[in-house]
Amino acid sequence: MYKLLSGKELSTVLKEEMKQEVAALVANGARPPHLAAILVGSDGASETYVGHKVKMCDQLGFASTLVRLEADTSEEVLLKKIEELNQQEDLDGFIVQLPLPKHINANKVVMAIDPKKDVDGFHPVNVGRMAQNLPSYLPATPYGIVQLLERNGIETSGKECVVVGRSNIVGSPMSILLAQNAAVGNCTVTLCHSRTKDLAFHTKRADILVVALGKAEFITGDMVKEGVVVIDVGITRVKDETRKSGYRLKGDVKFDEVAAKSSFITPVPGGVGPMTVVSLLKNTLKARKGEIEWV
Amino acid sequence: MYKLLSGKELSTVLKEEMKQEVAALVANGARPPHLAAILVGSDGASETYVGHKVKMCDQLGFASTLVRLEADTSEEVLLKKIEELNQQEDLDGFIVQLPLPKHINANKVVMAIDPKKDVDGFHPVNVGRMAQNLPSYLPATPYGIVQLLERNGIETSGKECVVVGRSNIVGSPMSILLAQNAAVGNCTVTLCHSRTKDLAFHTKRADILVVALGKAEFITGDMVKEGVVVIDVGITRVKDETRKSGYRLKGDVKFDEVAAKSSFITPVPGGVGPMTVVSLLKNTLKARKGEIEWV
Repeated sequence: MYKLLSGKELSTVLKEEMKQEVAALVANGARPPHLAAILVGSDGASETYVGHKVKMCDQLGFASTLVRLEADTSEEVLLKKIEELNQQEDLDGFIVQLPLPKHINANKVVMAIDPKKDVDGFHPVNVGRMAQNLPSYLPATPYGIVQLLERNGIETSGKECVVVGRSNIVGSPMSILLAQNAAVGNCTVTLCHSRTKDLAFHTKRADILVVALGKAEFITGDMVKEGVVVIDVGITRVKDETRKSGYRLKGDVKFDEVAAKSSFITPVPGGVGPMTVVSLLKNTLKARKGEIEWV
Repeated sequence: MYKLLSGKELSTVLKEEMKQEVAALVANGARPPHLAAILVGSDGASETYVGHKVKMCDQLGFASTLVRLEADTSEEVLLKKIEELNQQEDLDGFIVQLPLPKHINANKVVMAIDPKKDVDGFHPVNVGRMAQNLPSYLPATPYGIVQLLERNGIETSGKECVVVGRSNIVGSPMSILLAQNAAVGNCTVTLCHSRTKDLAFHTKRADILVVALGKAEFITGDMVKEGVVVIDVGITRVKDETRKSGYRLKGDVKFDEVAAKSSFITPVPGGVGPMTVVSLLKNTLKARKGEIEWV
C-alpha cells in the first residue's frame, strides 16, 4: 500500500513553523520578513499566482508589497524599479512575476535583480551556485520537492533517480540537486527528455521518479517498478463534464495504476503544488535571517 | 577498429584557425585578443600551467599579461587587482590560477571577476547561464570535449551518455551540457559518482562514456559495450622504472581493453588534455569579438 506524499499537509506544517518563527522575530522587536512582487500588466493566471503569494505573506506575518506596472511599461522603467527594490533596505526579497509582455527581455530583467534578493532563484548567480553546490536560493518547485523527500524521511543516497523533462525551472535543477553530495542527494541521476529513445527502460528502473512534462497521465503503471517513489510535477486541466468547473486537474502520472506499484507518490492536486509558494516564503525568511553565506 | 579522438591533432587545427583569425584582425588595424593570468605564489604545477598559457598566446598572436603576486598577498590586495583587470579596457579576459594560498577565499575571488571577462567559465553567472542553456563561457575541459565530439562528427542526439565523476569542473558541467537541446547535446545523460551502487550496469549501456575520476585504469574492457565512444578525462602519474622520467601517464580507462571495443576513444596523453588551453584561448577570442550575447 502506497503512502501519499502530501504537499497539502507538509505545507501546513511548514507554514505553522514559519508563522511561529516570524512571531518570535517580531516579539523580539525585529521587523518581519518582507517580500515584494512586481506584476507587469494583468494576465489572469499571474494575478492569481501573485494574489496567492500576497495572501500567504499576510497569513504568516510577512510584510508584502505588490508593485503593479501597466502592460505597456517600458523595459527601462521596469529595470529602474528593480534597481530601486535592490537598494530598498527594509526589503528582503522580491520576484518579477513571469511571463512578461513581449517587448521586455526577460533574461535582462532577471539579470538585473540583486542575486541576494532573488528569492525565486532564477538569477544565473543562484543557478550557478546551486550547480556548484554552494549556498543559494533554490527555485520554488525543486526546493519544494527536496523538502517533501526530506520531511517524509525518504532515503536518496545511492538510489537510482530518473527525472523526466529538462525544463530550466524543474527538470534540469532537480537532476542537478539529486546528484549532488548533499543530505537530499547522492542519487545516480538520469535526465530524460523528448529525445530519449527508450523512456520506459529508464522509468522502469527508477527508485525515485520525478516527472515534469506537462502531459496528462503520460506515465502508466507498466512504466514503473514495484516500490518506486513518484514525484508528479505535472498539472494539466482535462475536460470533465461531471464537474461544476467543467474540468479536473491531472498529473503527468496515471495515478491509480502507478500508485498501486508505488511506495510513496504525490497526489495531483495537493502534492508538489502547495509546496511552491511555501518554498518562496522560506527563501524570503532565509533572506531576512541572512542565512545564505554568499562567499 | 577504433578511431582515435586526438586532441593533439584537433588542437593543432584549432590553433591554426585562431592564428589566422587573429592575423586578420591585426591586419585590419584592430588590436589582438588579450589574456591575463594572475598567479599568486609559485606552486610548481601552477607555474607550468600558466607558462603554457602564456606561450600559446605568443604562438597565436594573442597579447598576454602575467601578473605575479607574492604567496603572502592579502585577499584584499588580490581583490583590488581583480577590480583593476575588470576595468582595464584593452583586456578581454583573465584567469586567476588555482589553487590559491589557504588564507584566500577562492569563492570570493571567483565571484569578484567580471563574468564578461571570466574566460575560465568558473563564475556562477557563467555556470548558471550554461545550466540555463544561455550563451556563456564554457569551462575549458567541457568545452574541449564538446569540440572533440563536434569536429569528429560524432552524433549525440538520442544517445545514452554516462558521465562518471561529478566534479564542478568536468563531470557536472558535462552532464548538464550533453543533456541540453543543443548541437552537441540531446543525450539521455546519467551522472554516476562514488555513491553509485552498480557502476558497471551504467557504463555497459553507454553509447558515449565520459570518465573523469582520476583513478588510473579504473574502467576495464568488461565494463563497456561494443561500439562505445570513450572520453577519458583522467590523467594520473604511474611509476614506470623503464622511463627516463620514472613515470608514465595513465587515463581512467584501461586503454587496450577498452579501445578494442570502442568506435572512438581519446588517448591519454594527447586526448582531452591538449584541448583545454586551446579552449581557454577560444573563449578569449570570443571575448575579443564580443560574441557572447549577455542579454
